[in-house]
Amino acid sequence: MDTTIKSLGPCEIISPLHHVGGGVEVNFRKDNERVLFSHTLDRDSEPHADASQFSFEASGPREHIFFNPAKTTAAIVTCGGLCPGLNDIIRGIVTQLHYRYAVTKVFGFRYGYEGLIPRYGHTPMLLKPESVSQIHNFGGTILGSSRGPQKIGEMVDLLEEMNIDLFFVVGGDGTLRGAVEISNECERRGLKKAVIGIPKTIDNDIMYLDKSFGFETAFAVAVQTVKCAYVEATGAVNGIGLIKLMGRDSGFISCYAALAGGNVDFVLIPEVPFQLEGERGLLEALRYKLAKKKNAVIVVAEGAGQDLIPSAGNTDASGNQKYGDIGLFLKDKIGAFFKERRTECNLKYFDPSYIIRSVPANAQDNVYCSQLAQHAVHAAMAGKTSMLVGRWHGAFVHLPIALATQGRRKVDPSSELWHSVLESTGQSARLSDG
Amino acid sequence: MDTTIKSLGPCEIISPLHHVGGGVEVNFRKDNERVLFSHTLDRDSEPHADASQFSFEASGPREHIFFNPAKTTAAIVTCGGLCPGLNDIIRGIVTQLHYRYAVTKVFGFRYGYEGLIPRYGHTPMLLKPESVSQIHNFGGTILGSSRGPQKIGEMVDLLEEMNIDLFFVVGGDGTLRGAVEISNECERRGLKKAVIGIPKTIDNDIMYLDKSFGFETAFAVAVQTVKCAYVEATGAVNGIGLIKLMGRDSGFISCYAALAGGNVDFVLIPEVPFQLEGERGLLEALRYKLAKKKNAVIVVAEGAGQDLIPSAGNTDASGNQKYGDIGLFLKDKIGAFFKERRTECNLKYFDPSYIIRSVPANAQDNVYCSQLAQHAVHAAMAGKTSMLVGRWHGAFVHLPIALATQGRRKVDPSSELWHSVLESTGQSARLSDG
Amino acid sequence: MDTTIKSLGPCEIISPLHHVGGGVEVNFRKDNERVLFSHTLDRDSEPHADASQFSFEASGPREHIFFNPAKTTAAIVTCGGLCPGLNDIIRGIVTQLHYRYAVTKVFGFRYGYEGLIPRYGHTPMLLKPESVSQIHNFGGTILGSSRGPQKIGEMVDLLEEMNIDLFFVVGGDGTLRGAVEISNECERRGLKKAVIGIPKTIDNDIMYLDKSFGFETAFAVAVQTVKCAYVEATGAVNGIGLIKLMGRDSGFISCYAALAGGNVDFVLIPEVPFQLEGERGLLEALRYKLAKKKNAVIVVAEGAGQDLIPSAGNTDASGNQKYGDIGLFLKDKIGAFFKERRTECNLKYFDPSYIIRSVPANAQDNVYCSQLAQHAVHAAMAGKTSMLVGRWHGAFVHLPIALATQGRRKVDPSSELWHSVLESTGQSARLSDG
Amino acid sequence: MDTTIKSLGPCEIISPLHHVGGGVEVNFRKDNERVLFSHTLDRDSEPHADASQFSFEASGPREHIFFNPAKTTAAIVTCGGLCPGLNDIIRGIVTQLHYRYAVTKVFGFRYGYEGLIPRYGHTPMLLKPESVSQIHNFGGTILGSSRGPQKIGEMVDLLEEMNIDLFFVVGGDGTLRGAVEISNECERRGLKKAVIGIPKTIDNDIMYLDKSFGFETAFAVAVQTVKCAYVEATGAVNGIGLIKLMGRDSGFISCYAALAGGNVDFVLIPEVPFQLEGERGLLEALRYKLAKKKNAVIVVAEGAGQDLIPSAGNTDASGNQKYGDIGLFLKDKIGAFFKERRTECNLKYFDPSYIIRSVPANAQDNVYCSQLAQHAVHAAMAGKTSMLVGRWHGAFVHLPIALATQGRRKVDPSSELWHSVLESTGQSARLSDG
Repeated sequence: MDTTIKSLGPCEIISPLHHVGGGVEVNFRKDNERVLFSHTLDRDSEPHADASQFSFEASGPREHIFFNPAKTTAAIVTCGGLCPGLNDIIRGIVTQLHYRYAVTKVFGFRYGYEGLIPRYGHTPMLLKPESVSQIHNFGGTILGSSRGPQKIGEMVDLLEEMNIDLFFVVGGDGTLRGAVEISNECERRGLKKAVIGIPKTIDNDIMYLDKSFGFETAFAVAVQTVKCAYVEATGAVNGIGLIKLMGRDSGFISCYAALAGGNVDFVLIPEVPFQLEGERGLLEALRYKLAKKKNAVIVVAEGAGQDLIPSAGNTDASGNQKYGDIGLFLKDKIGAFFKERRTECNLKYFDPSYIIRSVPANAQDNVYCSQLAQHAVHAAMAGKTSMLVGRWHGAFVHLPIALATQGRRKVDPSSELWHSVLESTGQSARLSDG
Repeated sequence: MDTTIKSLGPCEIISPLHHVGGGVEVNFRKDNERVLFSHTLDRDSEPHADASQFSFEASGPREHIFFNPAKTTAAIVTCGGLCPGLNDIIRGIVTQLHYRYAVTKVFGFRYGYEGLIPRYGHTPMLLKPESVSQIHNFGGTILGSSRGPQKIGEMVDLLEEMNIDLFFVVGGDGTLRGAVEISNECERRGLKKAVIGIPKTIDNDIMYLDKSFGFETAFAVAVQTVKCAYVEATGAVNGIGLIKLMGRDSGFISCYAALAGGNVDFVLIPEVPFQLEGERGLLEALRYKLAKKKNAVIVVAEGAGQDLIPSAGNTDASGNQKYGDIGLFLKDKIGAFFKERRTECNLKYFDPSYIIRSVPANAQDNVYCSQLAQHAVHAAMAGKTSMLVGRWHGAFVHLPIALATQGRRKVDPSSELWHSVLESTGQSARLSDG
Repeated sequence: MDTTIKSLGPCEIISPLHHVGGGVEVNFRKDNERVLFSHTLDRDSEPHADASQFSFEASGPREHIFFNPAKTTAAIVTCGGLCPGLNDIIRGIVTQLHYRYAVTKVFGFRYGYEGLIPRYGHTPMLLKPESVSQIHNFGGTILGSSRGPQKIGEMVDLLEEMNIDLFFVVGGDGTLRGAVEISNECERRGLKKAVIGIPKTIDNDIMYLDKSFGFETAFAVAVQTVKCAYVEATGAVNGIGLIKLMGRDSGFISCYAALAGGNVDFVLIPEVPFQLEGERGLLEALRYKLAKKKNAVIVVAEGAGQDLIPSAGNTDASGNQKYGDIGLFLKDKIGAFFKERRTECNLKYFDPSYIIRSVPANAQDNVYCSQLAQHAVHAAMAGKTSMLVGRWHGAFVHLPIALATQGRRKVDPSSELWHSVLESTGQSARLSDG
Repeated sequence: MDTTIKSLGPCEIISPLHHVGGGVEVNFRKDNERVLFSHTLDRDSEPHADASQFSFEASGPREHIFFNPAKTTAAIVTCGGLCPGLNDIIRGIVTQLHYRYAVTKVFGFRYGYEGLIPRYGHTPMLLKPESVSQIHNFGGTILGSSRGPQKIGEMVDLLEEMNIDLFFVVGGDGTLRGAVEISNECERRGLKKAVIGIPKTIDNDIMYLDKSFGFETAFAVAVQTVKCAYVEATGAVNGIGLIKLMGRDSGFISCYAALAGGNVDFVLIPEVPFQLEGERGLLEALRYKLAKKKNAVIVVAEGAGQDLIPSAGNTDASGNQKYGDIGLFLKDKIGAFFKERRTECNLKYFDPSYIIRSVPANAQDNVYCSQLAQHAVHAAMAGKTSMLVGRWHGAFVHLPIALATQGRRKVDPSSELWHSVLESTGQSARLSDG
């Protein structure tokens, strides 16, 4: 596994962070400082032989930097679906560039990669500390966003034309793969441009990262809907609250929302297959639960149970697989199941995804986003490229984009997390006869 | 218009409220105290000749009461859909009966009128101040609820068997009409039972009432979704946030949510018809808005535009008319309209009704519900029946149930409220060519 | 009681509200439409003979107005302590003037009446709909505020110099009395300037008003502290939560916060004197409460028990009487009382006033403030002056400032409100031996 | 540094977690699994030679356990000041014992260590899953708390008498040192009792822990006050918002609240000394800030600037040093400073500590507390003792109590955290002439 970070060249400029003054020392980091991938070991055994290989470059301010602040121009773009914290990232990058590096030309491209294609007519915004000082109080992104790729060459043309030196790309898998291509094209053209990714996925499914920004806010908001669903479920005879949450490939939001909210009876996630029918399937388990406690709450991640839905395959503008709507599917199946058995059941269906993703970041994400932004700026000024910033076991690190986008982080069904969910819900470990 | 309140008989028992002690006087009210229906007049003209007729009985504690507290048994039932404040009403009735009238036998029927029909097997709960002291912190109803009527005779049988003297019925139109029938059946059997309604409608559409409980909470929560919709709308090229809110016959929630949230471009309510097509119809107005400001937020009450939807007519278990889903209908129509014109549009659809109705009451409704409960108890102890408690121009009053359920309060399109909405949205007063 | 509203002259200009279009009629109001002061009566008796006299001018849009919108300049000033909703008022006035009357020159004076005195150097802000569109999401006032009067003549000089036609003054008693003087001085100089007050008092103590703006928000936030105090009280042996809330002359916030929060044992307000010592005084009552339930929560309005504090009399910059700190006083007295009796007691003291008054308005106040602003603008455009807008029994009205500032609204100890508080707390009606 | 965990003896009972069923494997952990203290290294150098020594025992379920669930009795005590999450911890321990280990006898001692001393008369509560299922929705602790130590022998007498096998102690430094003594006394008497600490400190100042429970909630609530202070500061001429936050020895809450809230100009923490007077002292810096931007927000941790306050030294019931009130001290000093210079200044002082610590845990802490509880139960059932559970670099670990209580975690002035604060506030790195 290659964890080497690409560099635009030697760092020969003294960082302006030296001038903090007051005799306070900045804790500069060196490129050879590493964060171990694995920090657990067996006492009896040797430390992992490859520990020094399998590790990430530590993030943080460098004593010498690549770009001359006085001549540096930066730009930011936000792509894909909304996620709490986007405005915090924008604000953080702008203020960090201004106040710590004295880089004052910072542009915001509008509406995702579309904003780098002149014919769409989206004029870039000049971003100043004053104009971004309150944006963290609002959800969404002041830049706007869009899905889908654009022509790499055309985008690099604009970056070249506008003399953008530092290009901060906030987005998901597809967006970040685009960032790699942009970086490669810059290299091909001999352009010294730092392309730094800040990975955005509300599902918390990025490999080698503790958590993605916005995740803490997202599951905290999801908990509120879980509580509403419980209220509805207890308010009617055989009441069922069914909540579909985000999570195409990974059930983190569903697991955390269920753990935090309590009162959930079933959590269905992509990582753990389940059956509807059969003695140990979901429907019989649900019938049993209603008989026992008169109500039930079900949390289902949008990517769960896709094998059960007779529909599949298309992809959206960003190249992501389209999913069958497991929420509505379950709603119908559960309704039909109880109707067939002439049992009254009052199912209330909740689909809060757009409400969750559009709220302002909470205090946790306020801080985390500002830290990600700071580390992104440090990395860019030091001439790193084709990398993203993240946090691993509490330490901020640099990751090659290519490494992080080669798979997705998932809930491990043998982990304490999933077992906590099983305990909290009381659901059977396998809702299937298999 | 008959505003006379039915009475079970003369009040010959001295109210225990006399014993407040400390020399503090209770402000007892008399039955001939009235609250005027109309409190506006032209200075030039005479006061309305019928003002003394068209007025409501003032609510409040009576110096003499009908029921002997020591021998009185009470019961509460909650019917129909959830609404913020149900638990506050329950808590208020229980504590008022206990602490001010020393009535200690208070039952809660489970799951609406079903709870009065023994064969459903829902055992009534005995309600004590301790068991209800914290329930106002939770949404829903600890009693559960159900829709639809039950056999009047069977219900009165149970009330008779359990010696229920005071019967508090919390519910909507259908429920309250049932309460009248129960009251009539009691009268027929010569039973002295006070049947007191507390009108529940999250839509705020009860005639002769300032506001229904839960309404303040409901629109305050709706505002949060309106803000999310605005964030989504501004976050994408030609972003549209479409929110369906409660309001089958009356658009109050939509109007107030739009006023409070700001940033709404169209409010569509049942009281004001609109066209989709045509030069002045919604779709062209929307196209114009997107061209002008790149995004739009639409709030639509569930009962709006029903004439446009090619589906109609069935009724649900409570006898309410079933409505076509105007939200999904608009979503499809708008999508098709812009697709046809090859204009990108990013519509996000919000349907937060279950989230809104299941939250705990906010501080405003905490107070209002406890006041309604107090007045309901005063009325019941004084032997009033077949009536409901409400607030008119800030004063608590008694209304015959029959009077209040003969129609619905609606938004007046010539009122300041609707004009404020027009100003706030900037929408045309009529989205139609007519 | 004189309820006549001063007028600058005859209204001869047709209101631009005629142009709403779409055939929608505006519900214009006439000056002789009145809102009765008293809307209750005894059926047996005649309606109050003076009902047509003792009534308020109904507020709302006039068909003919005094000022020519195209030539009109407006200004706003906010004075005194912060209160939720100030920004909503500012926003509402600006948008109402722009969108309904096409008045586009609107200034905001900075830092209260100081902003009208040039030597302070506070340049007025030009207010545009775009610059105020999001300010309702923030607490405080974008204009800033200050306490205390300024020279009337100097202020009128500036109004004259800047050609301000409509002057909206948001503030409390002292501020509003200043507005009357400004209006009088304008009259003396023959200046046709409409001076319109929007009364601000977080204590809800304005006479002839249902409620003051910000009050709903204030007590809702106060409830959160009441809940914290209860948590602290129950978390320790003989735990006492003592909360001082706003309310110099009137205990409304304390009453409503106690009613909404529940779990309060004592509410102390200026309107109801109490003793500390003696068998029936507060301290013994508290000792009894601790013995019985091991904890107690006390809510005290800042103006309560002033007769007990050996200090008094000075006045602040706005001429308001300075109060002894009843919160700290009680804290000390309670501590000493239990120490003397060698009883452990864990008192936690809460003084959340600045937190309460600086939050953004909640949804209720969002709407109420925008309505107040609209009515203020209607009144100003119609050439009314020396008046304020308010709501009486749900109807918006005009009041002479002089009338409203001649006293303060108070909690009536014989009212249902206070009796609800007594019931809710279980406290004795009189904490005194008298 | 000794990281060895004490054990009551060999684990010979098969864990009931084997019976999860459905073929799902539990991820059992072994005692020799370790979590490295340091997971960063220089690539060039060897991994730290002592890495395998300086590491913590990994937490988690053990395949074999020490206690026989059918015969096991557990008890919980909560000590010291309130902290968000206490109820979550209680709930988590009870449900984990019940549902995963089938241990059904769980007691809660009332009011801290007092509850283990019979003469106080606090009867222990029997805790059942049903009785704790909703307590996470409330702040504080259902068990109550108290400060200060009690006689070790007497407490162990009661544990012996009640046959408590597992004793969960939730509290701060003093409390945990007491737990060590209890564990030692048990050992002396030959009693096999597992004493497990869950460290409680809202200040986040425990060594070798990522974060303490309640911290995330605490700083998130603190942010709200920071925002109020900013509103107050901007609402007046030369407005100053001064907020005192928790943090006796460590400024974490102040740092995080300032970072999350934005708009803070000075953060004063115990780790970074500052001067009041002098050209580079706080007062001159504040004067400069007011001159420049007309307002300022200051966040001060309660333990900051203690060297400046002419008072010191006493200790409270728990043996903690008493601190001078830096908040009121600064308030006075700032007031005097500007008065002397005849400069108007409007300082508003905020002391929200009791409001912060008494709120319910937020979603982050809901999850974290339930995880801590689960790991505490795993450890106890495996016969570990005199240890506490914590999280280090994202991994749950066992720590000897003695190790964790030998010092406090502090903000490192050379860290990125502090530099982020400096950047965010724009304050000078050293407010002193030194």
